[in-house]
Amino acid sequence: MAGSKSVEELEKLVEELSGRVAALEQSQPEDRLTSGLLSGDLDKTMAAFIIALGARAFDIEVDIFATFWGTTAFRDPKKRVEKRGMDRMFDTMLPAGAGQLPLSRMNMAGMGPRMIRKAMAQHGAKSLEELLREAGEAGVRIHICTMTMDLMGLKPEEMIDYPHLDYVGVGQFIDFANRSRQCWFF
Amino acid sequence: MAGSKSVEELEKLVEELSGRVAALEQSQPEDRLTSGLLSGDLDKTMAAFIIALGARAFDIEVDIFATFWGTTAFRDPKKRVEKRGMDRMFDTMLPAGAGQLPLSRMNMAGMGPRMIRKAMAQHGAKSLEELLREAGEAGVRIHICTMTMDLMGLKPEEMIDYPHLDYVGVGQFIDFANRSRQCWFF
Amino acid sequence: MAGSKSVEELEKLVEELSGRVAALEQSQPEDRLTSGLLSGDLDKTMAAFIIALGARAFDIEVDIFATFWGTTAFRDPKKRVEKRGMDRMFDTMLPAGAGQLPLSRMNMAGMGPRMIRKAMAQHGAKSLEELLREAGEAGVRIHICTMTMDLMGLKPEEMIDYPHLDYVGVGQFIDFANRSRQCWFF
Repeated sequence: MAGSKSVEELEKLVEELSGRVAALEQSQPEDRLTSGLLSGDLDKTMAAFIIALGARAFDIEVDIFATFWGTTAFRDPKKRVEKRGMDRMFDTMLPAGAGQLPLSRMNMAGMGPRMIRKAMAQHGAKSLEELLREAGEAGVRIHICTMTMDLMGLKPEEMIDYPHLDYVGVGQFIDFANRSRQCWFF
Repeated sequence: MAGSKSVEELEKLVEELSGRVAALEQSQPEDRLTSGLLSGDLDKTMAAFIIALGARAFDIEVDIFATFWGTTAFRDPKKRVEKRGMDRMFDTMLPAGAGQLPLSRMNMAGMGPRMIRKAMAQHGAKSLEELLREAGEAGVRIHICTMTMDLMGLKPEEMIDYPHLDYVGVGQFIDFANRSRQCWFF
Repeated sequence: MAGSKSVEELEKLVEELSGRVAALEQSQPEDRLTSGLLSGDLDKTMAAFIIALGARAFDIEVDIFATFWGTTAFRDPKKRVEKRGMDRMFDTMLPAGAGQLPLSRMNMAGMGPRMIRKAMAQHGAKSLEELLREAGEAGVRIHICTMTMDLMGLKPEEMIDYPHLDYVGVGQFIDFANRSRQCWFF
């Protein structure tokens, strides 16, 4: 069929193709990963940050969305806020920061996390606290679920100092996920 | 090198490009999310439905695939079926619906879920039962794993009334996942 | 505006479009899924392999990345290695292979896994050991996290014989994930 089109017809085809290519380019995922933190487990939270730092080494953008128990890793044990009622109950029962997260397995009333931390130190692996500090330097963004803050009575004043931390709703998480190459929950 | 091609050569190039663009368009993920429910935990199941409703607000299609313990959220406690042997054991031991799901953390023999539900009511957050009703209205589709139904002795007659619920195999889940922008497990 | 371009101008446009289409083709995900195993739970590990085999039936490439407790499914109980200190503690406490994995729910000190295994046998569902053997035949690749091997004192000599098993760092996992249509953690 080649050779049957005029220059004008070809130009129209090229214009139409150009529009379709632009639409494809627009809808591509960015070079970006999103991690959802939900469990608040030490091992799973560490996995998220180890992957985050690995991704940053490849210049991949990383957004970490913390919801439910996942938010407790970002409480600062040195910053306490006066609370009442149910907020106070949550305050007492929830881990006060990265140093108090339980393991998803073999927690054994806190012996497991100590054992893992000791093994990590022996093998020169970074602690969660070190991973967090490096993540801040590497530009990993942390987004805390506003609904969880409200539900568990958490206050911004008791959260860690971190260079890229903000509070977002589920709509913003969906936007991050939609623009990411991968998104998973820990 | 420009200016060296004839109209016929250009036409061939445009035809070839057009085919490649069509192939790219065909293989793009749809504006669609898939959530796998596996844990059957109250908090994780709620997270899946909060995200599902958020996504529907952006007109994103949502498929929820329930497998293993994830199926128990969709049992209707008012619909009981006579069972024998191992099916009966599962019937007794598995949560009978959304109202009986445990928490992934701080379950404390059922005290945790009650505490979370109370906090949610105080803060005007929707219960899982309300989320489920809204998901039905919003067109969120629920797909229950046939292998799990069989394994746990669950019967369609004991599942909730929901406008978009069906029973699928793992092949259909893979198809949903493959066509989705994101897919995760809760 | 059609009909205003010369053949030379059209040729330039087609060349430019061709480059953009090639760039899009390059950045597309492959027909490939990646499963991360982190929990080491029997139910979740089985889900990963059932999906892996389902995906292979559609000719989708599958990479399974095992980290933390997820590695324990691949220990061979018949291959024991002399260990000392903390490595020995992990050796004793960690499940020695697929046959010893706990359930994520209703584990009941090992009664739950036995009950699930019995129900599976009754319904003709494949055991994890059978799934593993079939995954090997179907070309599912297993990648074990080197950092976990080190941390938990696991040795390659105690891992199962599997036709496609190797040891990788987090960077390689990120590469798998980035090239996959979907990636999730179990």
